[in-house]
Amino acid sequence: MAQLTILAGGVGGARFVRGARVLAAAMDLDITVIANTGDDLWLTGLRVCPDLDSLMYSLGGANDTERGWGRAGESERVSAELTAYGVGWPWFTLGDLDLGTHIARTALLRDGLSLTEATERLAARWNLGVRLLPASDDEVETNVEVVDEDGEARLIHFEEWWVRHRGNIPTRRFVQQGLESAVAAPAALEAVASADVVLFAPSNPVVSIGTILTLPGMREALRDTAAPVVGVSPIIGGAAVRGMAELCLRTIGVEVSAAAVGLHYGPRPAGGLLDGWLVDSADPEALGPLHAAGMEARAVPLWMTSDESSAAIVADALSLAAEARTA
Amino acid sequence: MAQLTILAGGVGGARFVRGARVLAAAMDLDITVIANTGDDLWLTGLRVCPDLDSLMYSLGGANDTERGWGRAGESERVSAELTAYGVGWPWFTLGDLDLGTHIARTALLRDGLSLTEATERLAARWNLGVRLLPASDDEVETNVEVVDEDGEARLIHFEEWWVRHRGNIPTRRFVQQGLESAVAAPAALEAVASADVVLFAPSNPVVSIGTILTLPGMREALRDTAAPVVGVSPIIGGAAVRGMAELCLRTIGVEVSAAAVGLHYGPRPAGGLLDGWLVDSADPEALGPLHAAGMEARAVPLWMTSDESSAAIVADALSLAAEARTA
Repeated sequence: MAQLTILAGGVGGARFVRGARVLAAAMDLDITVIANTGDDLWLTGLRVCPDLDSLMYSLGGANDTERGWGRAGESERVSAELTAYGVGWPWFTLGDLDLGTHIARTALLRDGLSLTEATERLAARWNLGVRLLPASDDEVETNVEVVDEDGEARLIHFEEWWVRHRGNIPTRRFVQQGLESAVAAPAALEAVASADVVLFAPSNPVVSIGTILTLPGMREALRDTAAPVVGVSPIIGGAAVRGMAELCLRTIGVEVSAAAVGLHYGPRPAGGLLDGWLVDSADPEALGPLHAAGMEARAVPLWMTSDESSAAIVADALSLAAEARTA
Repeated sequence: MAQLTILAGGVGGARFVRGARVLAAAMDLDITVIANTGDDLWLTGLRVCPDLDSLMYSLGGANDTERGWGRAGESERVSAELTAYGVGWPWFTLGDLDLGTHIARTALLRDGLSLTEATERLAARWNLGVRLLPASDDEVETNVEVVDEDGEARLIHFEEWWVRHRGNIPTRRFVQQGLESAVAAPAALEAVASADVVLFAPSNPVVSIGTILTLPGMREALRDTAAPVVGVSPIIGGAAVRGMAELCLRTIGVEVSAAAVGLHYGPRPAGGLLDGWLVDSADPEALGPLHAAGMEARAVPLWMTSDESSAAIVADALSLAAEARTA
């Protein structure tokens, strides 16, 4: 059985992993997902892990497909109480079903379980068909340095930057708080080391995949693994599939193009991370610079409109990985 | 304005305090309630305070009067999630609205507020008409030493003893866990010291009033206060209004009678706590022993069937207190 390890953010990552899961039986794949934990936060005493939960709900078939996030059949009775007490973030409403997950996770963490162990316990309820791992057991939270109306710089949590401000606020940089005393989770590192193929989902290259990569130990594990490492571009036709990625890329000074993001990760032979990079059929001009940099690259349809189209993308990524392995 | 301070448990305490509140305007009373915190517990990472919440919901008009506890219009969507995750006590279901209180409280405590401060913040939402104080800011939890089927003694939380087992398990004693490093809350002690009258609600003399009295500093404050201290019997006609009190009294070896409970608190002139003790009209035989022990006592109707009947009991208690003051 081939070990497939996928680095992923939340909603987009979940679509990609659902595609991989379609292939699992036919291709004899054992899938492990390493989820970004940089969006995690303590909110009203509860540990909220947006990307882990997006993956869990989507893979568990419990996600709200109409709204695009959270649980299907959600209600907000508890949040209304919190608002009445003046507690919490009024612009960050937690659903009742979703709160069940946060309370259960927090209880497990307070009992001394690591986030890896707590995630395994929570995931056991759902029939995910993949192993779900947090990128770190330590609390590394993505903060954003923004500039106030009075010109003062201050740090806010990534979720405040995105959910409250939709990124529409002067932004200087992203800061991973807690990184100095954090490491990548042992199980996540092991999943990279023992992989036959590693894929980067087409998730945000800055605050999803990028945050996973900042965790001490993760870059080294990716460089050391015998597995080919192939990524999928989140930029299609010069625009991010999700608008947030464009804002993030601009903030870190990377051009919003399929080639630029691939080169930002960098070709593995030259000290980067990627053996291969999949771009959309609309971006054939990206192939030249990527090949020139020593990276395998191919242009294929990258719109994940169904589990089947996602599966085709994963199959293309695996094919590119096989090519990279023999190259 | 006369300062009235009431020591109280949960549901029965709330009925008594509602009666006091009826009198507040006419009698120019400023009411402070010191609530038992011995039933408090950490459950799934949340701080649950059953007596404080029973008082808050009832005084705030948000209690479920049919069921007799918890919030009106309650639902249990979150608890169903916790059960699905296998987290928490399946026999101790927390309602969604109630969980809002626990989450808000826990968030405030995690922010560094004392339980006294957190309670003030939560109570600000409701129009209580009284000041609500926890007996302690420290975690003192009533445990019960029970005997297993295999003859082994072990400690369980009071809520497990009562809610799960209904006390129907061989019981040795009550143990206040955490007492060695706890003190009564400063605000509660101040409310006793500055009171014009102190009343004991007809709450459980062992695990409600009794637990408040075990808190270091509380007995001293009651002995030192210039205010008369008058209690109301929770035993009517030789039986507890709430069955649990009988079990508790038997466990600590106190006879289930109005006189015995009054004498258990003890007459203040002889080093006890009470200047006066109100018994029910059905218990006139209690008056002799109480008077003989040097305690003011009177037999009046003690059934709290409405706010008005509770108010009459409070008025009788205040009248007895005035008598004790002049005696």
